[in-house]
Amino acid sequence: MTSSSSKEYSPQEPPRTSLFTDHYELTMLQASLHSGAAHRSAVFEVFARRLPDGRRYGVVAGTGRLLEGISGFRFSETELGFLERARVVNRETLDYLADFRFSGDVWGYAEGEAYFPNSPILIVESTFAEACILETYLLSVLNHDSAIASAASRMTIAANGRPCIEMGSRRTHEEAAVAAARAAVVAGFASTSNLEAGLRYGIRTVGTAAHSFTLLHDTERAAFEAQIASMGADTTLLVDTYDVESAVRAAVEIAGERLGAVRLDSGDLIGQAHSVRRLLDELGNVNTRIVVTSDLDEYAIAALAAAPVDSYGVGTALVTGSGAPTASMVYKLVSRTDDDGEFVSVAKAAKNKQSVGGRKYALRRLDERGTATTEVIGVGRPPMGDSNDRLLLEHFIVKGELQPGWTGPEGVERARARHEASIAELPASARRMHRGEAVIPTVYLEDRE
Amino acid sequence: MTSSSSKEYSPQEPPRTSLFTDHYELTMLQASLHSGAAHRSAVFEVFARRLPDGRRYGVVAGTGRLLEGISGFRFSETELGFLERARVVNRETLDYLADFRFSGDVWGYAEGEAYFPNSPILIVESTFAEACILETYLLSVLNHDSAIASAASRMTIAANGRPCIEMGSRRTHEEAAVAAARAAVVAGFASTSNLEAGLRYGIRTVGTAAHSFTLLHDTERAAFEAQIASMGADTTLLVDTYDVESAVRAAVEIAGERLGAVRLDSGDLIGQAHSVRRLLDELGNVNTRIVVTSDLDEYAIAALAAAPVDSYGVGTALVTGSGAPTASMVYKLVSRTDDDGEFVSVAKAAKNKQSVGGRKYALRRLDERGTATTEVIGVGRPPMGDSNDRLLLEHFIVKGELQPGWTGPEGVERARARHEASIAELPASARRMHRGEAVIPTVYLEDRE
Repeated sequence: MTSSSSKEYSPQEPPRTSLFTDHYELTMLQASLHSGAAHRSAVFEVFARRLPDGRRYGVVAGTGRLLEGISGFRFSETELGFLERARVVNRETLDYLADFRFSGDVWGYAEGEAYFPNSPILIVESTFAEACILETYLLSVLNHDSAIASAASRMTIAANGRPCIEMGSRRTHEEAAVAAARAAVVAGFASTSNLEAGLRYGIRTVGTAAHSFTLLHDTERAAFEAQIASMGADTTLLVDTYDVESAVRAAVEIAGERLGAVRLDSGDLIGQAHSVRRLLDELGNVNTRIVVTSDLDEYAIAALAAAPVDSYGVGTALVTGSGAPTASMVYKLVSRTDDDGEFVSVAKAAKNKQSVGGRKYALRRLDERGTATTEVIGVGRPPMGDSNDRLLLEHFIVKGELQPGWTGPEGVERARARHEASIAELPASARRMHRGEAVIPTVYLEDRE
Repeated sequence: MTSSSSKEYSPQEPPRTSLFTDHYELTMLQASLHSGAAHRSAVFEVFARRLPDGRRYGVVAGTGRLLEGISGFRFSETELGFLERARVVNRETLDYLADFRFSGDVWGYAEGEAYFPNSPILIVESTFAEACILETYLLSVLNHDSAIASAASRMTIAANGRPCIEMGSRRTHEEAAVAAARAAVVAGFASTSNLEAGLRYGIRTVGTAAHSFTLLHDTERAAFEAQIASMGADTTLLVDTYDVESAVRAAVEIAGERLGAVRLDSGDLIGQAHSVRRLLDELGNVNTRIVVTSDLDEYAIAALAAAPVDSYGVGTALVTGSGAPTASMVYKLVSRTDDDGEFVSVAKAAKNKQSVGGRKYALRRLDERGTATTEVIGVGRPPMGDSNDRLLLEHFIVKGELQPGWTGPEGVERARARHEASIAELPASARRMHRGEAVIPTVYLEDRE
């Protein structure tokens, strides 16, 4: 496998994010500026009412990206000109947006943390105006990236230490692909094929070769010779364009015992992995690795556990969240001030989408062996924990100031470490592939002393 | 419903797309530059071996976006610096990339066209080098946008003329959301909530209000008054935060008979639509419309056909392709020149992923009433058609020059018209919601006279 990683990260301009916004956010802003309620203090909360069907935990991802994006949430002439021409909002609102800069506070679960139904994943406190217009953007990032990381986490568990390579870029939107590569690495993937993810986040990128490269040459042998001459023997040759056994023999003849790896991309992967391993060993290539690809998901990876496979390349199933392409997180107003400046808890009353009003706090209750037992949510005040318990809310933005360490390549590394630690403390049943319930219960401690 | 549309489109810089690319594309480039095979002429083809399970047709989308993206597929200092630092490729390859500009030809199905298994959706002819490195980017765009448009098309069929509004931005990656809004409109959606889609593609944007806006105010009545005072009576009020009937009565009292619409976002939508319609009519608001939202998909839309509903807001199901979030299109080398400059058909031999080598042509065979009967694919030469038949390949890029009319807002309008015409000519069974086979067969005409 050819691989690369670049640690020299040059921070780029924050992405232009302010129109990744639903029309109604800005008309609600206009109407609330008109009524004056826009300036009330407000607390919004991101949570998911449920995990994807059958999943035992979710993984928070995208936090680093959204914190970068909040910095870029400004309205320049391009955006203001559009909003004016298209008559989305009135002059008063355009003037407000021209000066917009988020000046409130954001707390949330660290990126990489496991979450459960109703975990308060992100909390935004500011004026209603400021918090309202971030809704769509924050949810887009968290819903996408968390869906990918939640699927990726099950794959790295199934792989049980063998490296997983993210290769799904071609099966999702080109920008979603970059975010998916990032989320996969947060959840334990070793590397990605996506070059832009390498540029933006310093993630290690790797590659093998496609069937087209073999077909381009007059013979498979000519293709292998070209690849080895140019990339060196420590490359990965794709050996299933014609006949696998002949290809492996040719590969070893040309590259010698230093051949890096061979890739299997079709057919009975388990049977082929065994026969190719035997052949490689017979030929003396005991260090040549076997990479398998071909529509792998967490179940296929688990099924390959006993096969002599060295790494897994995962594409479609990863970037589509393995059956759950979105995380169903919502962003709800849970508290706001009244005319006296006092906070009032609020919640929608409709029967089938009940929410718990009030500001939330959260801790993960751990037993004496450090195993998670309960997700404890305090409503209105922090829950009391004992020495084993772990508080879950980090303070990402303090009065508009982004705190260091959460964004860029540094944020990805930190999130990766958090994911690893968070999964390690879950009960063993979290590692089961078959369908089940959330692995720990969520318990509310109401504010009533 | 508040709505806007802006026709003053200012073309922007083409998007920077060159690193939306898998690592192996560039290492294959390096190895083929080394062997010299990089300069062979090559024909690559995009096709899908199958439609998503149970679907009767697919819809090509993203073509306009990818044509814009090919123009932006250049390697500046940013990309070259990364590729050098990360040691992805050698100096010779970096020099090649520094001068890269696609100079070949691209043909394909017009955006909006229906497609079937093995339809040659896009054909790229150039040197191997040029065509090879576009693979990931082209597939990302087509797989994502076609998945969304294919789902959207079934929704607009189910809606049977009632407007569908795209509202799914928060449930997908923020850039994928813009592309999804665009693809939805190609497939017949009337509008979107996504403001960036309004800016980029001149798509009409619309909005209502969220529960948070009601909860922000001291009473629902105060929220309605604020919205109407600021937006005018012809707005859409969200009436299910507390009690629907009280909310509708209050809305009519405040806005009068000119109230634009009410939105229902939870509960038994069919029952509520009937009771709200009766109440509105009793109150004299016969022109006030009813908008329904709340996790609609094509089946829920079809189930609401007999309910007094005026428009459908569709979110999650749209942006996730209603169960098929990617279109499973692949990009395969089907022909390339040999040392004498003669084209040779090529195809992978592996058993379970068979491909048909050779350059493809396509027409849709129509009967005397203009109804499609067969997807005819010519291999190596164009199939003969009669006067009813319709040739399917458009020539988008001619020797590197993008032909006019396919990109920007103009491309979206053209694709929307093509979708409408293409669906209209399919057999009636294409409009069925339940699972089935492709509605017309794909037939190959081999090159053997």
